[in-house]
Amino acid sequence: MTAAPVPVDLARAYRLLNHGPVTVVTSAHAGRRNVMAAAWTMPLDFSPPKVAVVVDKSTFTRELIEASGSFVLNVPCRAQAETVLAVGSCSGRDPECAGDKLARFGLHTLPATQVEAPLLAGCVGWLECRVVPEAHNEQRYDLFIGEVVAAWADPQVFADGRWHFAAAPDARRTLHYVAGGAFYATGEGIDLGD
Amino acid sequence: MTAAPVPVDLARAYRLLNHGPVTVVTSAHAGRRNVMAAAWTMPLDFSPPKVAVVVDKSTFTRELIEASGSFVLNVPCRAQAETVLAVGSCSGRDPECAGDKLARFGLHTLPATQVEAPLLAGCVGWLECRVVPEAHNEQRYDLFIGEVVAAWADPQVFADGRWHFAAAPDARRTLHYVAGGAFYATGEGIDLGD
Repeated sequence: MTAAPVPVDLARAYRLLNHGPVTVVTSAHAGRRNVMAAAWTMPLDFSPPKVAVVVDKSTFTRELIEASGSFVLNVPCRAQAETVLAVGSCSGRDPECAGDKLARFGLHTLPATQVEAPLLAGCVGWLECRVVPEAHNEQRYDLFIGEVVAAWADPQVFADGRWHFAAAPDARRTLHYVAGGAFYATGEGIDLGD
Repeated sequence: MTAAPVPVDLARAYRLLNHGPVTVVTSAHAGRRNVMAAAWTMPLDFSPPKVAVVVDKSTFTRELIEASGSFVLNVPCRAQAETVLAVGSCSGRDPECAGDKLARFGLHTLPATQVEAPLLAGCVGWLECRVVPEAHNEQRYDLFIGEVVAAWADPQVFADGRWHFAAAPDARRTLHYVAGGAFYATGEGIDLGD
């Protein structure tokens, strides 16, 4: 098992997403919960931190986000690539995925602190988000805006407001999704800072 | 010099951005032009392809985007990391960057086909975009939506609708930006497709 999540300063929460990793969205409401993959997400503001994420109208995740007004963006790692693909390839509405998709794929969770949705265990970062209602964006573009109300990271790979992939096993690197089951791991660091 | 840009099928244009690379935004209007870095961007739709990008109110780039109704998202590569940092650290409005920021940094361009903004030479992907006007998003979130009207790639690294980083020099890999001058190169491929 990996280390317990450690809180991330909200002013640094955008750094969990800034490099463009694929995410897994968890959602829950009134005893039902779901999980899906989302590559179309980005930071939208620093303070208060906000994120944008595209969630299709056909998804069960969207129904739970709309009902609860919240979601979690989980940042998975290389060891979870098959899980990301699996939860992204099968809808919580499909008969073969009916019921609890987290249970179906044997996924463990941790409780969030500010929202109903759970944190997906084994990830390296987590952003608990409350929906900032924008009906036009949601309807026209499937675009949801969330305010980050709590953020967490695996201290082995993210500490002091930055990623430390080189110090951790390669299996803990974040993932970038292209299409058709093709990912890239986050690669070599290039530090041009002072 | 790198290979001449080759057209990318619009249905595959989202794949230039799907893995979350940092981008460089170019803009131009009435003889003035500018360039800035933008990490906060993502695909927003497949067909017609759309993108979302955050462009701060303080930027000269924004003035030119608003005046021209268009922009280009350039996807830079590792060999251009210093350029990305430079154009992201200095505003076209600052006295020390006054004039033509592209010329100041010695950056070459190629003409776009559908928009006024130029393509930044040496990049590995380019998306020519026309603004889909959304005044509320632009004012409240600095969020611009663009429809991709033409797309291009360096055929050495992107062909047949997918990236081929392993077959090209590491200097042609795309970049992912964190903060404070810290980037990651796009790393090892993980193919879980059929």
